[in-house]
Amino acid sequence: MKTRVAVIGATGYTGGELLRFLVIHPKVEIRAITSREPSKLIYDVHPALRGFSNIKFENISPKEVSERVEFVFVATPHGVSMEVVPDLISNGVRVVDLSADYRLDDVSIFERTYGIKHKNPTYKAVYGLPELHRDEIRKAKLVANPGCFPTGAILAAAPAVEAGIVEHVIFDSKTGSSGAGRTPSEFTHHPELDENVKAYKVATHRHAPEMEQELNKLGKVKVSFTPHLVPVIRGILTTSHLLLSKEISSQDLQKMYFDYYRDEPFVRVLNFKELPSLSSVKGSNFCDIGCFEIDTTGRAIVISAIDNLVKGASGQAIQNMNIMLGFDETLGLMLPGLRP
Amino acid sequence: MKTRVAVIGATGYTGGELLRFLVIHPKVEIRAITSREPSKLIYDVHPALRGFSNIKFENISPKEVSERVEFVFVATPHGVSMEVVPDLISNGVRVVDLSADYRLDDVSIFERTYGIKHKNPTYKAVYGLPELHRDEIRKAKLVANPGCFPTGAILAAAPAVEAGIVEHVIFDSKTGSSGAGRTPSEFTHHPELDENVKAYKVATHRHAPEMEQELNKLGKVKVSFTPHLVPVIRGILTTSHLLLSKEISSQDLQKMYFDYYRDEPFVRVLNFKELPSLSSVKGSNFCDIGCFEIDTTGRAIVISAIDNLVKGASGQAIQNMNIMLGFDETLGLMLPGLRP
Amino acid sequence: MKTRVAVIGATGYTGGELLRFLVIHPKVEIRAITSREPSKLIYDVHPALRGFSNIKFENISPKEVSERVEFVFVATPHGVSMEVVPDLISNGVRVVDLSADYRLDDVSIFERTYGIKHKNPTYKAVYGLPELHRDEIRKAKLVANPGCFPTGAILAAAPAVEAGIVEHVIFDSKTGSSGAGRTPSEFTHHPELDENVKAYKVATHRHAPEMEQELNKLGKVKVSFTPHLVPVIRGILTTSHLLLSKEISSQDLQKMYFDYYRDEPFVRVLNFKELPSLSSVKGSNFCDIGCFEIDTTGRAIVISAIDNLVKGASGQAIQNMNIMLGFDETLGLMLPGLRP
Amino acid sequence: MKTRVAVIGATGYTGGELLRFLVIHPKVEIRAITSREPSKLIYDVHPALRGFSNIKFENISPKEVSERVEFVFVATPHGVSMEVVPDLISNGVRVVDLSADYRLDDVSIFERTYGIKHKNPTYKAVYGLPELHRDEIRKAKLVANPGCFPTGAILAAAPAVEAGIVEHVIFDSKTGSSGAGRTPSEFTHHPELDENVKAYKVATHRHAPEMEQELNKLGKVKVSFTPHLVPVIRGILTTSHLLLSKEISSQDLQKMYFDYYRDEPFVRVLNFKELPSLSSVKGSNFCDIGCFEIDTTGRAIVISAIDNLVKGASGQAIQNMNIMLGFDETLGLMLPGLRP
Repeated sequence: MKTRVAVIGATGYTGGELLRFLVIHPKVEIRAITSREPSKLIYDVHPALRGFSNIKFENISPKEVSERVEFVFVATPHGVSMEVVPDLISNGVRVVDLSADYRLDDVSIFERTYGIKHKNPTYKAVYGLPELHRDEIRKAKLVANPGCFPTGAILAAAPAVEAGIVEHVIFDSKTGSSGAGRTPSEFTHHPELDENVKAYKVATHRHAPEMEQELNKLGKVKVSFTPHLVPVIRGILTTSHLLLSKEISSQDLQKMYFDYYRDEPFVRVLNFKELPSLSSVKGSNFCDIGCFEIDTTGRAIVISAIDNLVKGASGQAIQNMNIMLGFDETLGLMLPGLRP
Repeated sequence: MKTRVAVIGATGYTGGELLRFLVIHPKVEIRAITSREPSKLIYDVHPALRGFSNIKFENISPKEVSERVEFVFVATPHGVSMEVVPDLISNGVRVVDLSADYRLDDVSIFERTYGIKHKNPTYKAVYGLPELHRDEIRKAKLVANPGCFPTGAILAAAPAVEAGIVEHVIFDSKTGSSGAGRTPSEFTHHPELDENVKAYKVATHRHAPEMEQELNKLGKVKVSFTPHLVPVIRGILTTSHLLLSKEISSQDLQKMYFDYYRDEPFVRVLNFKELPSLSSVKGSNFCDIGCFEIDTTGRAIVISAIDNLVKGASGQAIQNMNIMLGFDETLGLMLPGLRP
Repeated sequence: MKTRVAVIGATGYTGGELLRFLVIHPKVEIRAITSREPSKLIYDVHPALRGFSNIKFENISPKEVSERVEFVFVATPHGVSMEVVPDLISNGVRVVDLSADYRLDDVSIFERTYGIKHKNPTYKAVYGLPELHRDEIRKAKLVANPGCFPTGAILAAAPAVEAGIVEHVIFDSKTGSSGAGRTPSEFTHHPELDENVKAYKVATHRHAPEMEQELNKLGKVKVSFTPHLVPVIRGILTTSHLLLSKEISSQDLQKMYFDYYRDEPFVRVLNFKELPSLSSVKGSNFCDIGCFEIDTTGRAIVISAIDNLVKGASGQAIQNMNIMLGFDETLGLMLPGLRP
Repeated sequence: MKTRVAVIGATGYTGGELLRFLVIHPKVEIRAITSREPSKLIYDVHPALRGFSNIKFENISPKEVSERVEFVFVATPHGVSMEVVPDLISNGVRVVDLSADYRLDDVSIFERTYGIKHKNPTYKAVYGLPELHRDEIRKAKLVANPGCFPTGAILAAAPAVEAGIVEHVIFDSKTGSSGAGRTPSEFTHHPELDENVKAYKVATHRHAPEMEQELNKLGKVKVSFTPHLVPVIRGILTTSHLLLSKEISSQDLQKMYFDYYRDEPFVRVLNFKELPSLSSVKGSNFCDIGCFEIDTTGRAIVISAIDNLVKGASGQAIQNMNIMLGFDETLGLMLPGLRP
């Protein structure tokens, strides 16, 4: 029998991407998709899904949702999730929340970073990066799905930080426009973004505390982060400039990463000198990691590539669901990227 | 002494493009730029102009504008121009209006097409396509600058229509996103437009009556028009499918166009079989016309390429100003396109 | 037991796309992939497939291929397929050929169109457009997979042509760069194509005879075709300008199409006034058809959207294989497009 | 009387861009453009220049060139310039060389970096970055025009390095495809680059020694450099991660830069917190510099934006020519960028 699932806040890009995987998942059945503007068909909002489902959007409460399903994805903006999740959990539903509301262990850091008071400050959630927290995810009631930038950045630095060879890591990330969401703005207006590259929130992006939290669980390291918007729809390429505190050869660095991720289904460590690119992961749940060169100043370069909407959001959420429900972790997710 | 000019409604893309040409024009001086949100510097709104002018936006009336200048460009939306232009004209200022308000000779067609009542229905304006109406433009008080699509379409069909060899012309146009203006919308949201091509207003675009009006002055012809949005910022490529009523060879068709535009400074007729492309006109005031092939069904193909913001809007407005003020028609406009 | 399959000429984009579907197909097993430069791993050439297969390219003869497998996809250039296919067929292997070599019923038209002598002029092949020829495909030994442009164009015009209401159809197509293949050239050099739109082979494209052949099986109609290259990777949007010989309402035209394709798994007829776009079919095997507006000149506009590498090539080839092997026609192909 | 100039190697993108500025320059006259494939018209190779000049390409020797002109731009590949320049200089012609052949003061570093023996190892050339070497440029016979990446990187770091507050600078650059030149390759094949971001030569790019040479003239600093290719045609955005050795406030850092470049016509220092973007400099000779934020780790971020073909190549070459010939430094170059 299939597990009944719902998506709360299913009109945005991460919502649509969750549905793209859920409509073909062999062990789940979508029983509710919610929106404040209900009554549209799923494919009126997500036209690529025409022919896969005729479910309609509904404007129903978390309580109503929890009467229908065993599992819920919450894809609402930060600040909204914290109003929705407690009711779901208390009704015995298991949840993956894609917002930022439950990602930070220290609620005071959350409140400082997002500038809002947490309405549910005693939450217990697991940070849903399977490569670091698989065992806790398995048993969790509430999984906080990582931010898109932290997913690519943490995976690119974790092995070296855990090995204690990095003093300072500078993440210089290049992201596509879908990360800004479905609401039009000057920032992602086509004539303003096409043929352009723009840095933004260069020293103050809200995803930096996630990177610090997770990397400092592995070892002591200074973390700097600067994101850039580039004219592609999907993907984050993170160039990690690792200022090394100990000498290591490029070959050994590659081997360190290769061994670290040996059994991971969705992390692909490239051969020495091979470089990741967005094309190879577009539409897929993979994180490709490569480069491993070291220059004469003692800076190692490790580069990761993900699709921000998949491994950086909805695909990772499905991966977390698979783990939580005891399915094969790759179920419904083992699809190659769309290259070219 | 320089002619004093103003731009009313100077915050949008056509306004910015007017200023791009005006700041380097040797015979004019910008004395006012208006906006409903005043007090910003010109380069706060148009950052590419930093270093060229320190003029500030002002929220002043047409009357105040006309006390300062001899010549005004009106770059407000349709429906607004008709509220601004009469005051300017009655104060003795000469005007190029870039909106649609004065383009249609028959006010009832304007009202049906734009769905609004004209507030100034007894207007006298010249349709500002220099290649067809140079002499009237020279003497005009009010020039209605043509729409972007009509500019490329009319120039692509005029010689053949005037020669009486075309029964029906189908314009299939491909335009860049800047034509939709500076206000963000789902239509031009980067993730929705990048990697996409979309037809729109396939049989009902408001620019079609302009094409009919001008082409039927030259000869009897049925006109069909379908525009498409493609993921480029600037440019309109119009593929004119001319259903011929008389036989002609490709070579003769090319020669017909070459002769027709022989003395035009901004129309470049390509050699037989050469094809226009957006790159060659990007940023410039040229209209390139080429192709001239004829298939076995008696369909001739003539293709035109313009930059929608230049020959399709602000460059043509400057060209009209040059003609009206008795300057060399190419003054400040004779710049090559930005290729690649 | 799984059917053993091979791909001959698997290094190009259509080869890679075949492999993208084959590595996840539940009823087939890839037993050979060939190339003139052998010994590379599948993911050295198609990096998105890393983690799916470790098969190596081999430089083996058609005879050797036919000893290993029951079914072969031939993805070699035109002129090469005709040297490979006869050996495969005579060894009892069933074949889908993705080149142009077997698409035209009349070998003299092939020879005139492609400028080469056919080495296998007495071939018997079925034109592999399932929507028109499903029953013959089922029994065929050799299926000639349609060209990318003909797929979208024929599907956009077939219902109206079969109904006898069209006198002349002008297909104005906009295609992405992947259609030009994997070999770099000035035509698809990024600085030359980005921010550009280019018509090409405006009256003489080699795909026109396919359109004529298939549409004239359904009814008498004049066919014109002009393709354009636009700066997207995947997709063909075909705007069909149908010059009607009989009056019909837009609503009835939509209903005609809806009924015609009612049972087709991969043709999605949109509601009246909905417009297809490339985004909704990107990466998928769907052909979306919509618009159905009619202007005052008696021109109906019907627009189709496909992914040129999927429904326009490799996806359709898998669909043909499914039909030929008696599998569910949608097996391994029922994946939503990647939107945004 | 106009100065007679020539361009040797005028078929590539930097050659075309030189010609774009030269055809409108009021004080020079183009007397020769050379190519190994002569006899084409200038606009057969650079179609945007149709209507500006009818000069033909010629295959003539440096000696012949020097008989016709007083000033030469050499836009040949590295390794070729060193064969051309000596003859020009010895014939009394002044030269701006756009290749790498004369940029490095230490010929042994050149030979190690480019892997070729210098044929003219006793050369005397001035590094043509006017902001650092204006006085030497004025008197120089041979100016070595800087590389595109070094131009943006050096200008972004020079004030802080000269002030002695930087220990290590990491340049993370994002460049458009035109920097790779006009010859098609897999690297810049549209389906491979569009929707993609790729790092390359991550620790070994040939432009790094130029950055080291020039910055170490100003102060002691470690230099790291990693370039990325992004899907735009023109522009380099360089994010300079400056690891500070002394504390400074963001405001003071901005003021330091503002003062340093106060009198420079082509460097625009933005206000504190304003961020440069490629759009504002596209097609223009400006270098915009901004950001100046400092994070908690003591990393300052300074970002520069240039058009790689203009300030990064041909525009800067014209600027150098203006200086060398005693013209106003901005003559023919003071054109706003093409935004949007």
